[in-house]
Amino acid sequence: MLKNIRLVISYDGTDYCGWQKQNNAITIQNVMENCISKIIKEDVNLVASGRTDSKVHALGQVANFKMNCNIPVGNLVRAINSVLPDDIRVLNAEEVNVQFSARFSSKKKTYLYKIYNDEIFSPFYSRYSTFIPYKLDIGIMKQALELLVGEHDFRAFMSSGSGVKNTIRTIYSVNLLKKDSIIEIEITGNGFLYNMVRIIVGTIIEIGNEKRNINCIKDAFIYKDRSLLGKTAKPEGLFLRKVIY
Amino acid sequence: MLKNIRLVISYDGTDYCGWQKQNNAITIQNVMENCISKIIKEDVNLVASGRTDSKVHALGQVANFKMNCNIPVGNLVRAINSVLPDDIRVLNAEEVNVQFSARFSSKKKTYLYKIYNDEIFSPFYSRYSTFIPYKLDIGIMKQALELLVGEHDFRAFMSSGSGVKNTIRTIYSVNLLKKDSIIEIEITGNGFLYNMVRIIVGTIIEIGNEKRNINCIKDAFIYKDRSLLGKTAKPEGLFLRKVIY
Repeated sequence: MLKNIRLVISYDGTDYCGWQKQNNAITIQNVMENCISKIIKEDVNLVASGRTDSKVHALGQVANFKMNCNIPVGNLVRAINSVLPDDIRVLNAEEVNVQFSARFSSKKKTYLYKIYNDEIFSPFYSRYSTFIPYKLDIGIMKQALELLVGEHDFRAFMSSGSGVKNTIRTIYSVNLLKKDSIIEIEITGNGFLYNMVRIIVGTIIEIGNEKRNINCIKDAFIYKDRSLLGKTAKPEGLFLRKVIY
Repeated sequence: MLKNIRLVISYDGTDYCGWQKQNNAITIQNVMENCISKIIKEDVNLVASGRTDSKVHALGQVANFKMNCNIPVGNLVRAINSVLPDDIRVLNAEEVNVQFSARFSSKKKTYLYKIYNDEIFSPFYSRYSTFIPYKLDIGIMKQALELLVGEHDFRAFMSSGSGVKNTIRTIYSVNLLKKDSIIEIEITGNGFLYNMVRIIVGTIIEIGNEKRNINCIKDAFIYKDRSLLGKTAKPEGLFLRKVIY
Protein backbone atom coordinates (compact mmCIF):
# COMPACT_ATOMS: atom_id res chain seq x y z
CA MET A 1 0.00 0.00 0.00
CA LEU A 2 1.42 3.34 -1.04
CA LYS A 3 1.71 5.67 1.95
CA ASN A 4 2.06 9.45 1.82
CA ILE A 5 4.44 10.66 4.56
CA ARG A 6 4.61 14.24 5.75
CA LEU A 7 7.80 15.42 7.43
CA VAL A 8 8.53 18.55 9.45
CA ILE A 9 12.19 19.43 8.99
CA SER A 10 14.62 21.88 10.58
CA TYR A 11 17.96 22.76 9.01
CA ASP A 12 20.92 25.08 9.25
CA GLY A 13 21.23 26.07 5.58
CA THR A 14 24.73 27.56 5.86
CA ASP A 15 26.59 24.72 4.19
CA TYR A 16 23.98 23.90 1.51
CA CYS A 17 23.15 25.33 -1.90
CA GLY A 18 19.51 25.69 -0.86
CA TRP A 19 16.69 23.14 -0.82
CA GLN A 20 16.28 22.32 -4.50
CA LYS A 21 17.98 19.22 -5.95
CA GLN A 22 20.99 19.97 -8.18
CA ASN A 23 23.44 17.75 -9.97
CA ASN A 24 26.74 19.30 -8.95
CA ALA A 25 25.96 20.87 -5.60
CA ILE A 26 25.02 19.66 -2.14
CA THR A 27 21.44 20.65 -1.36
CA ILE A 28 19.05 19.78 1.46
CA GLN A 29 16.79 17.84 -0.92
CA ASN A 30 19.72 15.78 -2.28
CA VAL A 31 20.92 14.87 1.19
CA MET A 32 17.45 14.10 2.54
CA GLU A 33 16.37 11.95 -0.42
CA ASN A 34 19.60 9.94 -0.15
CA CYS A 35 19.21 9.46 3.59
CA ILE A 36 15.54 8.46 3.41
CA SER A 37 16.37 6.04 0.56
CA LYS A 38 18.95 4.37 2.79
CA ILE A 39 16.25 3.74 5.39
CA ILE A 40 13.31 2.66 3.21
CA LYS A 41 15.35 1.06 0.38
CA GLU A 42 13.24 2.83 -2.27
CA ASP A 43 13.84 5.82 -4.51
CA VAL A 44 12.49 8.94 -2.83
CA ASN A 45 10.99 12.06 -4.37
CA LEU A 46 10.68 14.61 -1.60
CA VAL A 47 8.35 17.56 -2.29
CA ALA A 48 8.81 20.61 -0.04
CA SER A 49 6.39 23.46 0.68
CA GLY A 50 8.80 25.61 -1.33
CA ARG A 51 12.47 26.08 -2.05
CA THR A 52 14.79 27.86 0.29
CA ASP A 53 17.89 29.60 -1.08
CA SER A 54 21.51 28.92 -0.31
CA LYS A 55 22.31 29.71 3.37
CA VAL A 56 18.62 30.11 4.29
CA HIS A 57 17.48 28.10 7.31
CA ALA A 58 14.31 26.28 8.32
CA LEU A 59 12.72 25.80 11.72
CA GLY A 60 9.67 24.01 10.29
CA GLN A 61 9.97 23.23 6.59
CA VAL A 62 7.32 20.70 5.51
CA ALA A 63 7.88 18.06 2.83
CA ASN A 64 6.17 14.85 1.74
CA PHE A 65 7.14 11.65 -0.08
CA LYS A 66 5.39 8.41 -1.04
CA MET A 67 6.62 4.97 -0.02
CA ASN A 68 5.62 1.33 -0.18
CA CYS A 69 7.95 0.42 2.68
CA ASN A 70 6.34 -1.16 5.75
CA ILE A 71 8.52 0.55 8.34
CA PRO A 72 6.21 1.83 11.14
CA VAL A 73 5.74 5.58 10.69
CA GLY A 74 6.48 6.00 14.41
CA ASN A 75 10.05 4.81 13.77
CA LEU A 76 10.77 7.08 10.82
CA VAL A 77 11.99 10.16 12.72
CA ARG A 78 14.61 8.28 14.67
CA ALA A 79 15.66 6.17 11.68
CA ILE A 80 16.08 9.07 9.26
CA ASN A 81 17.84 11.27 11.84
CA SER A 82 20.31 8.47 12.52
CA VAL A 83 21.67 8.86 8.97
CA LEU A 84 21.22 12.62 8.45
CA PRO A 85 24.05 15.09 9.19
CA ASP A 86 23.65 17.13 12.40
CA ASP A 87 22.63 20.28 10.53
CA ILE A 88 19.40 18.67 9.25
CA ARG A 89 16.82 17.13 11.62
CA VAL A 90 13.42 15.60 11.04
CA LEU A 91 11.18 16.87 13.87
CA ASN A 92 8.03 14.94 13.00
CA ALA A 93 6.74 12.30 10.57
CA GLU A 94 3.16 11.23 10.00
CA GLU A 95 1.07 9.47 7.43
CA VAL A 96 -1.32 11.80 5.60
CA ASN A 97 -4.02 11.52 2.96
CA VAL A 98 -2.61 10.45 -0.41
CA GLN A 99 -3.83 13.74 -1.96
CA PHE A 100 -1.71 15.87 0.40
CA SER A 101 1.07 17.85 -1.31
CA ALA A 102 3.45 19.87 0.85
CA ARG A 103 3.76 22.27 -2.08
CA PHE A 104 0.20 22.70 -3.30
CA SER A 105 -1.79 22.18 -0.09
CA SER A 106 -0.06 24.92 1.91
CA LYS A 107 -2.30 27.75 3.16
CA LYS A 108 0.08 30.04 5.09
CA LYS A 109 3.77 30.42 5.67
CA THR A 110 5.65 32.24 8.37
CA TYR A 111 9.16 33.55 7.84
CA LEU A 112 11.50 34.91 10.49
CA TYR A 113 14.41 37.26 9.76
CA LYS A 114 17.13 38.08 12.31
CA ILE A 115 19.16 41.29 12.27
CA TYR A 116 22.17 41.67 14.55
CA ASN A 117 22.19 45.37 15.42
CA ASP A 118 25.22 46.34 17.48
CA GLU A 119 28.66 47.88 16.99
CA ILE A 120 30.47 44.55 16.83
CA PHE A 121 29.05 41.39 15.20
CA SER A 122 28.87 38.25 17.33
CA PRO A 123 30.76 35.20 15.96
CA PHE A 124 27.75 33.14 17.09
CA TYR A 125 25.32 35.04 14.89
CA SER A 126 27.29 35.37 11.66
CA ARG A 127 25.62 32.26 10.22
CA TYR A 128 22.17 33.22 11.52
CA SER A 129 21.63 36.94 11.00
CA THR A 130 22.58 39.98 9.00
CA PHE A 131 24.83 42.53 10.69
CA ILE A 132 23.75 46.17 10.86
CA PRO A 133 26.26 48.23 12.86
CA TYR A 134 24.42 51.56 12.61
CA LYS A 135 21.41 52.90 14.52
CA LEU A 136 17.95 51.79 13.38
CA ASP A 137 14.66 53.53 14.17
CA ILE A 138 12.54 50.62 15.39
CA GLY A 139 9.34 52.69 15.47
CA ILE A 140 9.41 53.64 11.80
CA MET A 141 10.41 50.07 10.84
CA LYS A 142 7.30 48.76 12.61
CA GLN A 143 5.12 51.32 10.81
CA ALA A 144 6.62 50.35 7.46
CA LEU A 145 6.00 46.65 8.12
CA GLU A 146 2.34 47.33 8.95
CA LEU A 147 1.85 48.83 5.47
CA LEU A 148 2.43 45.38 4.00
CA VAL A 149 -0.52 43.75 5.75
CA GLY A 150 -3.44 42.89 3.47
CA GLU A 151 -3.82 41.85 -0.16
CA HIS A 152 -1.43 43.68 -2.51
CA ASP A 153 0.33 43.29 -5.81
CA PHE A 154 3.86 42.56 -4.59
CA ARG A 155 5.44 42.60 -8.09
CA ALA A 156 8.04 45.18 -6.97
CA PHE A 157 9.00 42.87 -4.09
CA MET A 158 10.26 40.10 -6.39
CA SER A 159 13.70 39.38 -7.78
CA SER A 160 13.76 38.70 -11.50
CA GLY A 161 14.28 35.12 -12.62
CA SER A 162 11.12 33.46 -11.32
CA GLY A 163 8.46 32.80 -13.93
CA VAL A 164 5.58 33.76 -11.62
CA LYS A 165 2.69 35.58 -13.37
CA ASN A 166 0.26 36.28 -10.52
CA THR A 167 2.07 38.54 -8.06
CA ILE A 168 -0.88 39.26 -5.79
CA ARG A 169 -0.30 37.96 -2.26
CA THR A 170 -1.88 38.47 1.14
CA ILE A 171 0.15 39.26 4.24
CA TYR A 172 -1.81 38.26 7.35
CA SER A 173 0.48 39.52 10.06
CA VAL A 174 3.83 41.14 10.74
CA ASN A 175 5.82 41.49 13.92
CA LEU A 176 9.04 43.17 14.93
CA LEU A 177 10.74 42.48 18.24
CA LYS A 178 14.02 43.91 19.50
CA LYS A 179 15.79 42.14 22.35
CA ASP A 180 19.34 43.19 23.23
CA SER A 181 21.27 43.18 19.95
CA ILE A 182 18.77 41.06 18.02
CA ILE A 183 15.88 42.36 15.93
CA GLU A 184 13.45 39.62 14.88
CA ILE A 185 11.02 40.29 12.04
CA GLU A 186 8.21 37.79 11.49
CA ILE A 187 5.91 37.80 8.46
CA THR A 188 2.98 35.48 7.78
CA GLY A 189 1.30 35.35 4.38
CA ASN A 190 -0.52 33.06 1.98
CA GLY A 191 2.57 32.85 -0.19
CA PHE A 192 5.79 34.68 -0.99
CA LEU A 193 7.41 35.69 -4.28
CA TYR A 194 11.07 35.02 -5.05
CA ASN A 195 13.20 36.92 -2.47
CA MET A 196 10.10 38.76 -1.22
CA VAL A 197 10.95 38.50 2.48
CA ARG A 198 14.56 39.51 1.91
CA ILE A 199 13.49 42.52 -0.18
CA ILE A 200 11.00 43.53 2.51
CA VAL A 201 13.70 43.29 5.19
CA GLY A 202 16.29 45.13 3.08
CA THR A 203 13.78 47.91 2.54
CA ILE A 204 12.76 48.08 6.21
CA ILE A 205 16.44 48.37 7.17
CA GLU A 206 16.96 51.31 4.79
CA ILE A 207 13.81 52.97 6.15
CA GLY A 208 15.06 52.43 9.71
CA ASN A 209 18.35 54.04 8.71
CA GLU A 210 16.64 57.05 7.05
CA LYS A 211 18.20 56.08 3.71
CA ARG A 212 14.74 55.58 2.26
CA ASN A 213 11.35 57.14 3.01
CA ILE A 214 8.52 54.99 4.36
CA ASN A 215 6.35 56.06 1.39
CA CYS A 216 8.45 53.89 -0.90
CA ILE A 217 6.28 50.94 0.10
CA LYS A 218 3.00 52.50 -1.06
CA ASP A 219 4.79 53.73 -4.20
CA ALA A 220 6.06 50.22 -4.87
CA PHE A 221 2.49 48.86 -4.72
CA ILE A 222 1.39 51.52 -7.22
CA TYR A 223 4.31 51.59 -9.64
CA LYS A 224 5.39 47.94 -9.23
CA ASP A 225 9.02 49.00 -9.62
CA ARG A 226 11.76 47.01 -7.87
CA SER A 227 14.10 50.02 -7.89
CA LEU A 228 11.83 51.89 -5.45
CA LEU A 229 12.80 49.39 -2.72
CA GLY A 230 15.92 48.56 -0.73
CA LYS A 231 18.64 46.01 -1.36
CA THR A 232 17.79 42.32 -0.95
CA ALA A 233 18.86 41.43 2.60
CA LYS A 234 21.43 38.64 3.00
CA PRO A 235 20.17 35.04 3.11
CA GLU A 236 21.89 34.17 6.43
CA GLY A 237 19.21 35.94 8.50
CA LEU A 238 16.23 34.15 6.95
CA PHE A 239 14.37 31.24 8.55
CA LEU A 240 11.30 29.44 7.21
CA ARG A 241 9.54 29.16 10.55
CA LYS A 242 6.23 27.41 9.87
CA VAL A 243 3.96 26.16 7.09
CA ILE A 244 0.26 25.87 7.77
CA TYR A 245 -2.09 23.52 5.84
CA MET B 1 57.52 53.39 22.88
CA LEU B 2 56.56 49.73 23.37
CA LYS B 3 52.88 49.43 24.24
CA ASN B 4 51.21 46.42 25.87
CA ILE B 5 47.74 45.87 24.37
CA ARG B 6 45.06 43.78 26.02
CA LEU B 7 42.30 42.32 23.83
CA VAL B 8 39.00 40.72 24.75
CA ILE B 9 38.11 38.20 22.05
CA SER B 10 35.06 36.11 21.18
CA TYR B 11 35.20 33.17 18.79
CA ASP B 12 33.24 30.28 17.41
CA GLY B 13 35.87 27.55 17.73
CA THR B 14 34.12 25.02 15.47
CA ASP B 15 36.40 25.42 12.48
CA TYR B 16 39.67 25.83 14.38
CA CYS B 17 42.18 23.44 15.88
CA GLY B 18 42.01 25.32 19.16
CA TRP B 19 43.80 28.46 20.30
CA GLN B 20 47.44 27.39 20.33
CA LYS B 21 49.66 28.16 17.33
CA GLN B 22 50.51 25.13 15.18
CA ASN B 23 52.47 24.75 11.97
CA ASN B 24 50.09 22.66 9.88
CA ALA B 25 46.69 23.55 11.28
CA ILE B 26 44.49 26.62 11.40
CA THR B 27 44.24 27.91 14.96
CA ILE B 28 42.78 31.04 16.51
CA GLN B 29 46.24 32.28 17.52
CA ASN B 30 47.63 31.78 13.99
CA VAL B 31 44.77 33.68 12.40
CA MET B 32 44.79 36.48 14.96
CA GLU B 33 48.53 37.04 14.88
CA ASN B 34 48.44 37.22 11.07
CA CYS B 35 45.52 39.64 11.07
CA ILE B 36 47.01 41.93 13.72
CA SER B 37 50.35 41.89 11.85
CA LYS B 38 48.56 43.11 8.72
CA ILE B 39 47.27 46.10 10.66
CA ILE B 40 50.33 47.09 12.70
CA LYS B 41 53.00 45.91 10.21
CA GLU B 42 54.97 44.22 12.97
CA ASP B 43 55.42 40.60 14.04
CA VAL B 44 52.92 39.77 16.75
CA ASN B 45 53.22 37.38 19.67
CA LEU B 46 49.75 37.04 21.16
CA VAL B 47 49.59 35.58 24.68
CA ALA B 48 46.17 34.28 25.79
CA SER B 49 44.86 33.62 29.29
CA GLY B 50 45.05 29.94 28.37
CA ARG B 51 44.56 27.57 25.47
CA THR B 52 41.18 26.43 24.33
CA ASP B 53 40.84 23.05 22.59
CA SER B 54 39.61 22.32 19.09
CA LYS B 55 35.89 23.26 18.72
CA VAL B 56 35.82 25.08 22.09
CA HIS B 57 34.39 28.61 21.96
CA ALA B 58 35.11 31.88 23.74
CA LEU B 59 32.79 34.67 24.78
CA GLY B 60 35.55 36.61 26.53
CA GLN B 61 39.01 35.20 25.97
CA VAL B 62 41.72 37.70 26.98
CA ALA B 63 45.07 38.02 25.22
CA ASN B 64 47.86 40.59 25.07
CA PHE B 65 50.63 41.59 22.67
CA LYS B 66 53.33 44.25 22.55
CA MET B 67 53.70 46.74 19.70
CA ASN B 68 55.71 49.80 18.72
CA CYS B 69 53.10 50.89 16.18
CA ASN B 70 51.55 54.32 16.69
CA ILE B 71 48.01 53.40 15.60
CA PRO B 72 45.59 54.90 18.19
CA VAL B 73 44.41 52.14 20.53
CA GLY B 74 40.84 53.38 20.00
CA ASN B 75 41.05 52.34 16.34
CA LEU B 76 42.42 48.85 16.94
CA VAL B 77 39.11 46.99 17.43
CA ARG B 78 37.63 48.17 14.17
CA ALA B 79 40.89 47.75 12.25
CA ILE B 80 41.58 44.20 13.43
CA ASN B 81 37.94 43.10 12.96
CA SER B 82 38.02 44.40 9.39
CA VAL B 83 40.56 41.70 8.51
CA LEU B 84 39.45 38.88 10.82
CA PRO B 85 37.03 36.18 9.63
CA ASP B 86 33.43 36.49 10.93
CA ASP B 87 33.88 33.68 13.45
CA ILE B 88 36.48 35.65 15.45
CA ARG B 89 35.76 39.13 16.85
CA VAL B 90 37.77 41.50 19.01
CA LEU B 91 35.32 43.00 21.51
CA ASN B 92 37.69 45.40 23.25
CA ALA B 93 41.27 46.68 23.08
CA GLU B 94 43.10 48.79 25.62
CA GLU B 95 46.63 49.70 26.59
CA VAL B 96 47.73 48.14 29.87
CA ASN B 97 50.78 48.21 32.11
CA VAL B 98 53.82 46.63 30.44
CA GLN B 99 53.96 44.00 33.20
CA PHE B 100 50.48 42.68 32.41
CA SER B 101 50.38 39.11 31.07
CA ALA B 102 47.03 37.66 29.98
CA ARG B 103 48.38 34.28 31.01
CA PHE B 104 50.13 34.94 34.32
CA SER B 105 48.08 37.84 35.70
CA SER B 106 44.71 36.06 35.57
CA LYS B 107 42.91 35.63 38.92
CA LYS B 108 39.66 33.85 37.99
CA LYS B 109 38.08 32.20 34.97
CA THR B 110 34.48 31.40 34.23
CA TYR B 111 33.50 28.59 31.89
CA LEU B 112 30.05 27.89 30.51
CA TYR B 113 28.92 24.50 29.21
CA LYS B 114 25.71 23.94 27.24
CA ILE B 115 23.81 20.65 27.12
CA TYR B 116 20.93 20.20 24.67
CA ASN B 117 18.53 17.91 26.52
CA ASP B 118 15.58 16.88 24.35
CA GLU B 119 14.51 13.97 22.17
CA ILE B 120 15.68 15.53 18.91
CA PHE B 121 18.84 17.65 18.56
CA SER B 122 18.47 21.13 17.08
CA PRO B 123 20.55 21.83 13.93
CA PHE B 124 21.24 25.27 15.44
CA TYR B 125 22.86 23.84 18.56
CA SER B 126 25.01 21.07 17.11
CA ARG B 127 28.05 23.39 16.99
CA TYR B 128 27.35 24.87 20.42
CA SER B 129 26.25 22.12 22.80
CA THR B 130 26.39 18.44 23.58
CA PHE B 131 23.24 16.41 22.90
CA ILE B 132 21.73 14.31 25.68
CA PRO B 133 18.47 12.69 24.53
CA TYR B 134 17.64 10.95 27.81
CA LYS B 135 16.16 12.25 31.04
CA LEU B 136 18.46 14.04 33.47
CA ASP B 137 17.82 14.64 37.16
CA ILE B 138 18.57 18.35 37.48
CA GLY B 139 18.35 18.31 41.28
CA ILE B 140 21.08 15.72 41.79
CA MET B 141 23.24 17.42 39.13
CA LYS B 142 23.07 20.67 41.10
CA GLN B 143 23.99 18.85 44.32
CA ALA B 144 26.95 17.19 42.60
CA LEU B 145 28.19 20.51 41.24
CA GLU B 146 28.03 22.07 44.71
CA LEU B 147 30.48 19.43 45.98
CA LEU B 148 33.15 20.97 43.76
CA VAL B 149 33.08 24.36 45.44
CA GLY B 150 36.14 25.17 47.56
CA GLU B 151 39.81 24.25 47.45
CA HIS B 152 40.44 20.65 46.40
CA ASP B 153 43.04 18.48 44.75
CA PHE B 154 41.46 18.04 41.30
CA ARG B 155 44.08 15.54 40.05
CA ALA B 156 41.34 13.03 39.11
CA PHE B 157 39.65 15.76 37.02
CA MET B 158 42.58 16.07 34.60
CA SER B 159 43.27 14.35 31.30
CA SER B 160 46.77 12.96 30.99
CA GLY B 161 49.21 14.77 28.75
CA SER B 162 49.60 18.05 30.60
CA GLY B 163 52.77 18.42 32.62
CA VAL B 164 51.05 20.21 35.51
CA LYS B 165 52.42 19.26 38.97
CA ASN B 166 50.25 21.27 41.34
CA THR B 167 46.69 20.06 40.86
CA ILE B 168 45.12 21.99 43.73
CA ARG B 169 42.52 24.47 42.48
CA THR B 170 39.74 26.53 44.03
CA ILE B 171 36.22 26.62 42.61
CA TYR B 172 34.48 29.81 43.73
CA SER B 173 31.02 29.21 42.33
CA VAL B 174 28.91 26.86 40.27
CA ASN B 175 25.53 27.35 38.65
CA LEU B 176 23.13 25.17 36.70
CA LEU B 177 20.17 26.61 34.83
CA LYS B 178 17.64 24.71 32.70
CA LYS B 179 15.55 26.69 30.22
CA ASP B 180 13.48 24.76 27.67
CA SER B 181 15.84 22.24 26.07
CA ILE B 182 19.06 23.94 27.20
CA ILE B 183 20.98 23.21 30.38
CA GLU B 184 23.70 25.76 31.12
CA ILE B 185 26.43 24.94 33.60
CA GLU B 186 28.70 27.74 34.77
CA ILE B 187 31.85 27.23 36.81
CA THR B 188 34.19 29.92 38.17
CA GLY B 189 37.58 29.04 39.60
CA ASN B 190 41.11 30.34 40.09
CA GLY B 191 42.33 27.99 37.38
CA PHE B 192 41.42 24.81 35.56
CA LEU B 193 43.40 21.67 34.76
CA TYR B 194 43.49 20.11 31.28
CA ASN B 195 39.90 19.09 30.35
CA MET B 196 38.76 19.75 33.93
CA VAL B 197 35.46 21.44 32.97
CA ARG B 198 34.63 18.77 30.41
CA ILE B 199 35.37 15.98 32.89
CA ILE B 200 33.19 17.73 35.50
CA VAL B 201 30.34 18.05 32.99
CA GLY B 202 30.69 14.48 31.73
CA THR B 203 30.54 13.28 35.33
CA ILE B 204 27.56 15.47 36.21
CA ILE B 205 25.70 14.09 33.16
CA GLU B 206 26.33 10.50 34.27
CA ILE B 207 25.17 11.36 37.80
CA GLY B 208 22.03 13.00 36.36
CA ASN B 209 21.37 9.84 34.38
CA GLU B 210 21.88 7.56 37.41
CA LYS B 211 24.81 5.87 35.67
CA ARG B 212 27.12 7.06 38.41
CA ASN B 213 26.62 7.81 42.10
CA ILE B 214 27.10 11.35 43.40
CA ASN B 215 29.68 10.02 45.90
CA CYS B 216 32.11 9.51 43.03
CA ILE B 217 33.10 13.17 43.38
CA LYS B 218 34.19 12.90 47.01
CA ASP B 219 35.92 9.61 46.18
CA ALA B 220 37.77 11.28 43.31
CA PHE B 221 39.10 13.95 45.70
CA ILE B 222 40.32 11.24 48.07
CA TYR B 223 41.69 8.64 45.63
CA LYS B 224 42.69 11.06 42.83
CA ASP B 225 41.71 8.45 40.27
CA ARG B 226 40.39 9.57 36.86
CA SER B 227 38.51 6.28 36.38
CA LEU B 228 36.12 7.17 39.23
CA LEU B 229 34.65 9.94 37.07
CA GLY B 230 32.55 10.17 33.90
CA LYS B 231 33.58 10.51 30.28
CA THR B 232 35.07 13.81 29.12
CA ALA B 233 32.14 15.79 27.66
CA LYS B 234 32.44 16.91 24.03
CA PRO B 235 34.25 20.17 23.27
CA GLU B 236 31.37 21.72 21.28
CA GLY B 237 29.44 22.67 24.42
CA LEU B 238 32.30 24.53 26.13
CA PHE B 239 32.67 28.32 26.20
CA LEU B 240 35.37 30.34 27.97
CA ARG B 241 33.04 33.04 29.27
CA LYS B 242 35.22 35.45 31.22
CA VAL B 243 38.72 35.98 32.61
CA ILE B 244 39.17 38.21 35.62
CA TYR B 245 42.43 39.98 36.50
